[in-house]
Amino acid sequence: MSKLLIVGTVAFDAIETPFGSTDKILGGAATYIGLSAAHFGVDAGIVSVVGGDFPDTYLKDLNERKVNTDGIAIIPSGKTFFWKGKYHNDLNSRDTLATELNVLADFNPVVPEAYKEAEFLMLGNLDPAVQLSVIEQMKKRPKLVVLDTMNFWMDTTWDTLLEVIEKTDVITINDEEARQLSGEYSLVRAARKIQAMGPAYVVIKKGEHGALLFHQNEVFFAPALPLEEVFDPTGAGDTFAGGFIGHLTKTQDISFDNMKRAVIAGANLASFCVEKFGTTRMETLSPGEVQDRLLQFKLLTQFDIELH
Amino acid sequence: MSKLLIVGTVAFDAIETPFGSTDKILGGAATYIGLSAAHFGVDAGIVSVVGGDFPDTYLKDLNERKVNTDGIAIIPSGKTFFWKGKYHNDLNSRDTLATELNVLADFNPVVPEAYKEAEFLMLGNLDPAVQLSVIEQMKKRPKLVVLDTMNFWMDTTWDTLLEVIEKTDVITINDEEARQLSGEYSLVRAARKIQAMGPAYVVIKKGEHGALLFHQNEVFFAPALPLEEVFDPTGAGDTFAGGFIGHLTKTQDISFDNMKRAVIAGANLASFCVEKFGTTRMETLSPGEVQDRLLQFKLLTQFDIELH
Repeated sequence: MSKLLIVGTVAFDAIETPFGSTDKILGGAATYIGLSAAHFGVDAGIVSVVGGDFPDTYLKDLNERKVNTDGIAIIPSGKTFFWKGKYHNDLNSRDTLATELNVLADFNPVVPEAYKEAEFLMLGNLDPAVQLSVIEQMKKRPKLVVLDTMNFWMDTTWDTLLEVIEKTDVITINDEEARQLSGEYSLVRAARKIQAMGPAYVVIKKGEHGALLFHQNEVFFAPALPLEEVFDPTGAGDTFAGGFIGHLTKTQDISFDNMKRAVIAGANLASFCVEKFGTTRMETLSPGEVQDRLLQFKLLTQFDIELH
Repeated sequence: MSKLLIVGTVAFDAIETPFGSTDKILGGAATYIGLSAAHFGVDAGIVSVVGGDFPDTYLKDLNERKVNTDGIAIIPSGKTFFWKGKYHNDLNSRDTLATELNVLADFNPVVPEAYKEAEFLMLGNLDPAVQLSVIEQMKKRPKLVVLDTMNFWMDTTWDTLLEVIEKTDVITINDEEARQLSGEYSLVRAARKIQAMGPAYVVIKKGEHGALLFHQNEVFFAPALPLEEVFDPTGAGDTFAGGFIGHLTKTQDISFDNMKRAVIAGANLASFCVEKFGTTRMETLSPGEVQDRLLQFKLLTQFDIELH
């Protein structure tokens, strides 16, 4: 079985949406990526850190969904990373109400021996120094390194971020971040400039407006599925990334054609994630549901038109 | 040859974008719709009104592009409708600097005899009372009536607008307008409510984020082509509508599958419109260029994924 190593946050989230609010629930980029990638039956392991306050049951939940948690260090005297956010009425924007780094502040990632030769490496959104450390611990260069990052790291650790970007094959960022990273407003130009920084593939996430995949002069678009109701967007981007790399890890095929399928797979998984609070929907999601919705993506996008 | 009747404005536009500005140039919804639909080799005629200040050369330009202008009334003592707008840096929003209705204020549309049995009717964005008058002048109910409208008419002539909507088969509006018209934030729900008002097909235009086509429980998505540079978005929505109805008029097929092709055709034409100021690009556009870009739409959206 093909191996996928994921580095990222495992956290407590407290979420407010127009439809309700939660106390501290399971969250974090690596959590969402892992739960999403696990749908592809791959051997996915997480490298992260939590505090003594992190419930065993959360780790067991992850294990039950076939996510390996051996690489999640537990610091008994510390507290787990905590994020609190409130979504605006349109669910397209949010305010961060609290960010407590806690054990994440001194996170020194240790890749378990069993994952040091993983063919696929997903660098979830966190400090580029941590991402770099994980890359350096790999025994051989993975077949594919995917990087997710955000504007915060562009503002604070530009040089290290560029160093990580240079070592990756695929970068996933949102449209505003692509503009900030490249200095170009046009996403076509932004993607070209970012490719020149290292990654041969650039995925630009546009939330409810879908995602674009750029490679050389080619571009592919995966729409977001129009949903009757979006309940909680938390984790949608990470779930997208998890579906993307989960599909690639399963198929072991990193051609552009297969990357197209991978972004559709990511959009598919993300469309479930937003239906309930936090990870709730991802934890009950069945393979049949994923397959059914794949058909909806086909119906949504496929057309038959004559080319003369 | 299949006939298409278009009612809408023929106007002078003055446009400011971050890349430059124009004095009064040819504009108006019916102009863009006509130039776009003409690419499908259909017999398209415009019903509109202009003033004595409207240059003959503009009418000749339209005729040369095979757009029939017999239905454009000329009021020698009047002035042509004038719109002046300034786009913001992101080109996604604009301020209207001037709107001079002029001859449009008392526009009493007269459908030329030759188009009273047109199988396809495109109601471009203007006063619903004018749209209604055109519907009532048709000798027989057209095979398909497509309505474009905007928030202004929802704010000012709600009842007449609803009367028009009830008589149409397809409505094209943007996402904010769909929300206003339906009172629903979710576009899926909005489309369902709007269908209940009359039109069996609802097209929601999202500008650079593409367009959604709803019919009963089906939905199809046409992306906007990612462009290296957008020069002037003026007329893009009308050009989309013109490509949509042009394709349908040419093929005479109003099935959902063919409507999918029609929204792709609309997105295709619109992707050219924005490349230059005003109608400039549309006037030089060749069938070969349109065909080539259709291939780009296929590459952008088509994927081959196994459904178990």
